[in-house]
Formats: sequence, C-alpha cells, structure tokens
Amino acid sequence: MRFAITAKLAYHFDREAEVLLLLEAARTGDQEVIRDSITVTPHTDVARLYDPATNERRSVFTADGDVEIVYEALVQVTPPAGDYRQQPCVAIRNLPADVLHFLRPSRYCPSDRLESFVEREFTGLEGGAKAAAIADWITANLRYEIGTSNAYTTALDTFLEGAGVCRDFTHLAITFLRAAGIPARAVSAYAWKLEPPDMHAVTELYLGGRWWLMDATCKAPIEGLVRVATGVDAADIAFLSVFGNAYLQAQSFTIEAVNPP
Amino acid sequence: MRFAITAKLAYHFDREAEVLLLLEAARTGDQEVIRDSITVTPHTDVARLYDPATNERRSVFTADGDVEIVYEALVQVTPPAGDYRQQPCVAIRNLPADVLHFLRPSRYCPSDRLESFVEREFTGLEGGAKAAAIADWITANLRYEIGTSNAYTTALDTFLEGAGVCRDFTHLAITFLRAAGIPARAVSAYAWKLEPPDMHAVTELYLGGRWWLMDATCKAPIEGLVRVATGVDAADIAFLSVFGNAYLQAQSFTIEAVNPP
Amino acid sequence: MRFAITAKLAYHFDREAEVLLLLEAARTGDQEVIRDSITVTPHTDVARLYDPATNERRSVFTADGDVEIVYEALVQVTPPAGDYRQQPCVAIRNLPADVLHFLRPSRYCPSDRLESFVEREFTGLEGGAKAAAIADWITANLRYEIGTSNAYTTALDTFLEGAGVCRDFTHLAITFLRAAGIPARAVSAYAWKLEPPDMHAVTELYLGGRWWLMDATCKAPIEGLVRVATGVDAADIAFLSVFGNAYLQAQSFTIEAVNPP
Amino acid sequence: MRFAITAKLAYHFDREAEVLLLLEAARTGDQEVIRDSITVTPHTDVARLYDPATNERRSVFTADGDVEIVYEALVQVTPPAGDYRQQPCVAIRNLPADVLHFLRPSRYCPSDRLESFVEREFTGLEGGAKAAAIADWITANLRYEIGTSNAYTTALDTFLEGAGVCRDFTHLAITFLRAAGIPARAVSAYAWKLEPPDMHAVTELYLGGRWWLMDATCKAPIEGLVRVATGVDAADIAFLSVFGNAYLQAQSFTIEAVNPP
Repeated sequence: MRFAITAKLAYHFDREAEVLLLLEAARTGDQEVIRDSITVTPHTDVARLYDPATNERRSVFTADGDVEIVYEALVQVTPPAGDYRQQPCVAIRNLPADVLHFLRPSRYCPSDRLESFVEREFTGLEGGAKAAAIADWITANLRYEIGTSNAYTTALDTFLEGAGVCRDFTHLAITFLRAAGIPARAVSAYAWKLEPPDMHAVTELYLGGRWWLMDATCKAPIEGLVRVATGVDAADIAFLSVFGNAYLQAQSFTIEAVNPP
Repeated sequence: MRFAITAKLAYHFDREAEVLLLLEAARTGDQEVIRDSITVTPHTDVARLYDPATNERRSVFTADGDVEIVYEALVQVTPPAGDYRQQPCVAIRNLPADVLHFLRPSRYCPSDRLESFVEREFTGLEGGAKAAAIADWITANLRYEIGTSNAYTTALDTFLEGAGVCRDFTHLAITFLRAAGIPARAVSAYAWKLEPPDMHAVTELYLGGRWWLMDATCKAPIEGLVRVATGVDAADIAFLSVFGNAYLQAQSFTIEAVNPP
Repeated sequence: MRFAITAKLAYHFDREAEVLLLLEAARTGDQEVIRDSITVTPHTDVARLYDPATNERRSVFTADGDVEIVYEALVQVTPPAGDYRQQPCVAIRNLPADVLHFLRPSRYCPSDRLESFVEREFTGLEGGAKAAAIADWITANLRYEIGTSNAYTTALDTFLEGAGVCRDFTHLAITFLRAAGIPARAVSAYAWKLEPPDMHAVTELYLGGRWWLMDATCKAPIEGLVRVATGVDAADIAFLSVFGNAYLQAQSFTIEAVNPP
Repeated sequence: MRFAITAKLAYHFDREAEVLLLLEAARTGDQEVIRDSITVTPHTDVARLYDPATNERRSVFTADGDVEIVYEALVQVTPPAGDYRQQPCVAIRNLPADVLHFLRPSRYCPSDRLESFVEREFTGLEGGAKAAAIADWITANLRYEIGTSNAYTTALDTFLEGAGVCRDFTHLAITFLRAAGIPARAVSAYAWKLEPPDMHAVTELYLGGRWWLMDATCKAPIEGLVRVATGVDAADIAFLSVFGNAYLQAQSFTIEAVNPP
C-alpha cells in the first residue's frame, strides 16, 4: 500500500535548545520512501543524519522561540506475508549478533524482573504459540487509558497498574517476550486508521529467522504501519528529544492510503 | 605497552544452557591483538561472532555440567596522548550520530533523574573541567565496598548509598556526565595492576571530538587497560550472560606487562 | 484565632463503596472545636470514629451513585509560642516511646536512603539550626508545580525531580529531618490564606521536648493552620480513602478568620 | 504451652550509639510473661519502655565498644482456638478504628500496586477461603532462600523475584491480604522448632472479628510462637535499631518447651 503522511509539530522554546527528531520514515527493504521533506519554520539549517546500522534518519537543529516542524512523505509499504503465530523459536546460538541484543533487559523493559511471572503464566508454550499467548494476555489484561503513565513508567509499572497507552502496551509485550526467550524490540510508526491519529508504538519480535510486527493494542492494522525508528525501547525511538526546554503548542499526524499512479 | 592476559572461569550448569561470552580483547586502532584463543573444556563448538559496529567479539556456546573457559591473549596497546580535562564540550549538533546515543538515559544510568542534582552541584563548569569535577566528586564521595550492590543496582541507588564497586562507580560517572550534556559509556577491560585482579569497568566520555577513558575508582592506571566491550552500561558489557542457570565455581584474571620481542 | 471552615466534596461512585473521611478538625490542647457537622447527601448513616491515640476523628459510610459531603466547623486555635529554630535536639534515649516511631523511614519518606546526602549537605549543624537549614534548602530547591507527582511519588522522587506540591514538600522535609536524627511527621490541615484554597499538608518536627509545625512551601501562615490528621506520611492522612472507585466531580475548601463573639 | 527463651546478641560499636531493642515478649491476653530479664554487658542503664497501644516493650540504651545483650524469659502461651480459613470478612464500616489502619499500603507492603494482580489471581473467593488461597499461593510460589533480599526489599520485589526469607514471605502475604480487602500486619516472634533457630516474622490477619496468625513459610507451628512486636511491616518490628553503626559479632536464639511446675 501507498501512504501520504503529514506530521505537524509546534513548540515554544524559552531559550536556544538542540532538537533531535526521529520523524522520518525509514528506508528499508519493505518500505520505499518515494519522496519526503522536513521543514522547520522559521527557517533553520537542519542536519539530516542517516544511521546505516538501523536505517534510521534523524534530523538535528537548533531551536529558539516559536518553532513549527512539518514532515511530509509518500511511502510505499510492502509488508511481508506470513504469521508469527506459526513460527518456531530460534535457538540462541543461531541468533544473529545484532538480534541477540534484543533479548537483554533494558530500562523500560526489565525482562529479568518478570521472568518468574512469565515462567508461571506461559508455561508449556513455545515459539509463535507463546508469543500469541503473550499478545492475548496483554490485550485482555491492560486497559488503554491515557494519563496512567509518564516518562519514567516501565513495563513493570504497567504490569502492576493494568493500564497504559501504546508505549506501555509495547513495553510490556517486549518485556514478556524477552523473559520468554524471544528477542523483541520497539518500533515507532505512522499508523493508518489509528484513532485518534497519533504516532504509534508497536512491538517487533524475532521468530523463525525474521522480525515480525505485533500490536498488542489492536488499535491499527499491522499492514498500515509505516516504520520510523527501531530500538530497545521507547528511550531509543522518541520522535522528539530536546536538550533544553520545549513547550508543546500543537501537534497533528495524518496518514492516508493513496492509490499508486 | 604489551600485555599477556589469562582469564579462567569455571561454572557448573545444572542443565543445558546457552552461554554468551564477552571476554575477548577488542581489535581497535589503539589495540592490536597479536594472538588470542578461547578454550572451553570439555570441548564444545564455540561460535565467535564479530560485531563491526562495536569492534566487539563475542563467543557463544552451549554448556552443560562442569565447564571451564580459558581465554589467553597477547595485546599491544597504544593509548592516545592527551588529557580530557583540557578538552571542550562538543555541541550536540556536531556530535556524530553514533555518539548522540550515549547522551540518553539507560537502565543503569538514568541521567534524566539526576539532572537537577548535577545542575546544582556542578554549575558554572564546562567541558573537561566539568568532567574532572564529576570524577573528583565520585572519588571523594563513594566508598569502594563489596556487597553493597547487586544486579539491579542503578546509578541512582549508588548515589544514595554512597558506596559500590567498579561497576557502580562507572554507572554514576556515566550518569552524571550525560546529565551534564557529555556523552558517556561503559567499557569492560582487563586492568593491569588492579588489586585484587578482576575484570574492570571504567567510563568513557566524549569531549573535543574523541572518546577518553576515565576511572573514578582510581584503582588502576588508564594506560594499562585492555578494552573488551563497550556499551551504554553494564547491561551491554557483562562478560558472561547465561540463558539458563550457571553456578560459579572459580574465576581468575591475570594481566602482565611483557616486553615486546 | 477563630476559624470558620467549610469543605464540600462531590463524587460519583459507579457501585457501592466504603468511604473513609479524615476531614474533621482534631480536638487537641491547642485547638477547640466549638461546633462542627458532617452531612452526606443523599442521607446515609455516617459512623464517626474517635481515635484517642491521635485525637483524630474519622467518618465512615457507604456510598453509591452521586454523593455530596459537606463538613462545617468553627474552631478556636491557640498556637503555642516559640520558634523551633532555637530548640535543641532531644537525645534518642530521652524521646517518648510514641515519638521514637517518627524517626523511622516510612513509605513516602525513605529517610534511610537519603542519609548520606543529608550528612554531606547539612554537616556541622545541630537541632533547630539544622531543621532551619533543611527548611531553607527545600524552599530554595523545590519548585511548587502541580502535575509533577502522583500517588506513588516518594520524597526520593521529589528530591530528584526538584518539584512537587505541598504533599511532596512535606515528605521531603520529613525525610531530611529523620535522616538528620530529628523526629518528623505529616499533618493535614485547613490553611487560612492558602491560595488557591485547598487542604494543606505540612511538617511537624520534634525538638526541645515538643512538636513544632513547619511549612516548607511557605504558602500559608503557621498560626492559621487547623489540624485535621497526623501521621507518618501522606498514607496516614489522606482526607478521602475509598474502598472501591470514586470519581471526583467537584471540591471546595474555605477557611475564614472570624471574630470571637 | 510454656516456653523458655534465650536470645544472645553481640555487637561491636565503633563509637557511641543509641540502641533500641524489640526483643521482649509482649504481655497480651494470650501470653503471660512469667519472668524475664534483659542484661547488657558491660553494665549500662537500660530504659525499658512500655507502649500500651501495642503491648510492646522496648529497651533503649547507649552502646559503645563490644557489647553483649542477653534476654531470658519464661512465657506461658495460650493460643486461641479456631481456624481463620472458616472465617468471614468484616465489612470495612464494621472494622475497629485501630484495625482499619492495617488495610493501608505501607513501605514494604505496597498493596495498592498489587491490586490488579490479586483481583485477577484470587477472583471469586471471599474471607477465610481467600486468605487460605493467598497463603497457599505464597507457599507454592516463593522459594525460601537466604541472600535474595536486603533491607530495601519490598513485597513487590519478592513477588517478582519469587524468593526470600521469613520477612519477605510475611510482607508478600500482608500485601496480598490488604489488596484483597483483609487487614493484615507483621509480627515478630520467637518460634519453637524453627530451624535454624532465629527470630521469626509471621503474618497476622483480621477476619471474623479477631486477629489470626498465619505463617506462609510453614517453617514453625503457629502454636509455638511467642509474640514480641506487632506493626505495619518489618519497619516497625526490627529487633535491633541502631542510631549509629553496629557490627554483628554473634547472635543466637533458643526457645524450648518446658513443663509447667
């Protein structure tokens, strides 16, 4: 499918600050960025960095006063076929070096601390069946509720609270998966049909020799996701990082399916 | 300088487990591995993985019962000249993409939470002078004390407790540095003259366009460090990760300066 | 001084729940409750419990649907003379048994964890001078800011965040005081001249053989406080505890100085 | 039954420190202290405080250098008949004021955070049946393991770790009970037949109008417990609190059943 994306962000900066954006659609084998542009008003030099290790594209600039950021893109997405629920687990010794990393606990996904719960709760399952049971548990036991979490909320807090937003659902899914021996990571994405429209965070898990997207919030179709950034958890994929103070004035995200020409 | 290194580890595994070792000296511009070998007894196939992004070399194997691991190496180290205390801070917009990452909070180094303390305590200093004040604060205010920390101990815990081991000193230094706007990361190393001999953890910080080693424990000379792994914090550089249970039986580390032929 | 107090609370309960109120002015040597009444609408039996150990008066009732609670009181307050800043510390062996308790860490006031900071920061001071330095530190270093804390926020979080509301100021003052060897506890009160009007939380500390009120927020005069409840921390003095779900609809607190007849 | 108790503690104090002991058998309706004595060597004045609210007896003294403490007692215990497993829950509005307190979260027993787990896990049960299911869950899912917990370990940590000692078993039981709406508290006791001999911590829960002892460790018979202290959690019942530094040299506890004359 082909998607037209527009993200508009307006912030006030009370003094000069460095801004790091992770807003740009990633260029991957499954995702062709036909065109895109990033505009900062008032005009500022924007350094656009490409990280070959992750396919991510970051924009860095210096902001001051009232600043508007607009990202526009046209992206062709070709999701791979298949269903992770049928896939086998990959033995640790056969995991690629760059996948191994995603088995480890991270700040927001302290999988070592939930190991005994995961062992009790999902015992007897393997591979895709275990991942599916984890997704189902989260869908059944977490309420989607704005205002229950903040920037310090970990998957452990979410597990205890029983509520959160997409970031929290994703962190808990990643944490359970890693605790179950399945590599997992966080993906930020533009999400077609997500209501209300917003940047989305979903889970990616490694089974049967490749990565698969999973969205435990069930709020948007997997095939309508346009990947932006990929990382160990939300710490890696925040769409805006400010070294200084930024005050949000307005933001909007739109993504529409368009017909190829 | 040239160093001869021997690490010996003996573990008991009560059932088959996957083992990931980060014991091998890194091959970097400053560090030439003249020869090295890793031996697991009883004999097992050891997969040796090289990660070009980090220059790290990992060994992966399947263990069961009583297992002995021996790593032997001869390494030539050419530490770069200079002193970070004289270096200026690099503006965020001028940081390389792969350095930016090390400004972010991580699990064991939650630098966002110590920002207000760092701002109060180290106000008015910049660049190398600020890094030096941080190193001095840690040396003055942390007691080196075994048994005060465990696998879950963060830099915040160490800050409050006022005590820890090399891992904890390193985490607090990294946390203070990131909170002060200076990229910082963790390095595991064989450390010449360290008493008692052990794997060591030290800090690396980015000033004036390059990385500099810092050891807030002051227990071993910087020029006698042989780098093994580099990462955001201890989570990335553990020398042994076991997917299963391992019971330590014995371990020893030796590093000696040798004359080049 | 004599104060006329009115508290009005409106809640919605989606099913029957037990409600515990701590709204009633305490009857103490310094505080004469001339008259007071508590009314729940629609009419419900309200059990009014008196706890002689704390002089607190609790109201318990069963709520369902939309419920309005009105508390009205006329209270004469005679604050004791003197200034804690001049008082000596009481040796632990001379503390009354019921005061000793308030030297111990509690959930929101983990004074054991801030001992090393307190020792470094307030070294060389004793008794009232130390308490005064603690009050001044908090006034200088905490921003009064709504929305930075929630029901789980401890004094440690507040210390790190550098911001909070009256509850958080009080918790940090108690924590520092206990860590400094001075018994301290939390008091909820109606507070004359507090803007905007609300229930207030302040600190009480033990020096020179008696308890003294302290308000590190500096938002209301000490002599205009009408005590409601006293406890180890906010956990003990919440004005509303619900065993079930309550949704706040409206609340208002007024306290006015009136002339004695 | 009648029990002869001896507790011997030896500590080194590197400078003068105040010591608070909670070692003395409580005098309650169920427990008659026939005779007891507390001796500190070298001889020191020991203030013995009695707290009528809790029936606890504390000893306070100033220690320096090497100090030996010996407590000897002869106590007649008459445990009440009955089994909590058959008892109904008491409605909150019918709970005595001094029992209500033990429904609230405390530092080591953050019952608010485990509410959603308790609701899921023990759904459909009431009163004694629910308390019994909680005791059984803990017995089944916690390993008794020394060294997995420290002074900061909460019931939440124990829940996640799946292991602990008597203090941790007790904290988790209290936390689950409170989250289930059943008042619960911590009791320190001399425990007949406990192996190895030590001070013990057990749970007390309120059902059917009275308190009942419960020991989720199942390591000693309930009828052989001699109560010392009672409190919201371990923070209240530590047998030794030192305001200063104490270094443990030796400790032993013995309790033997003796025939009445």
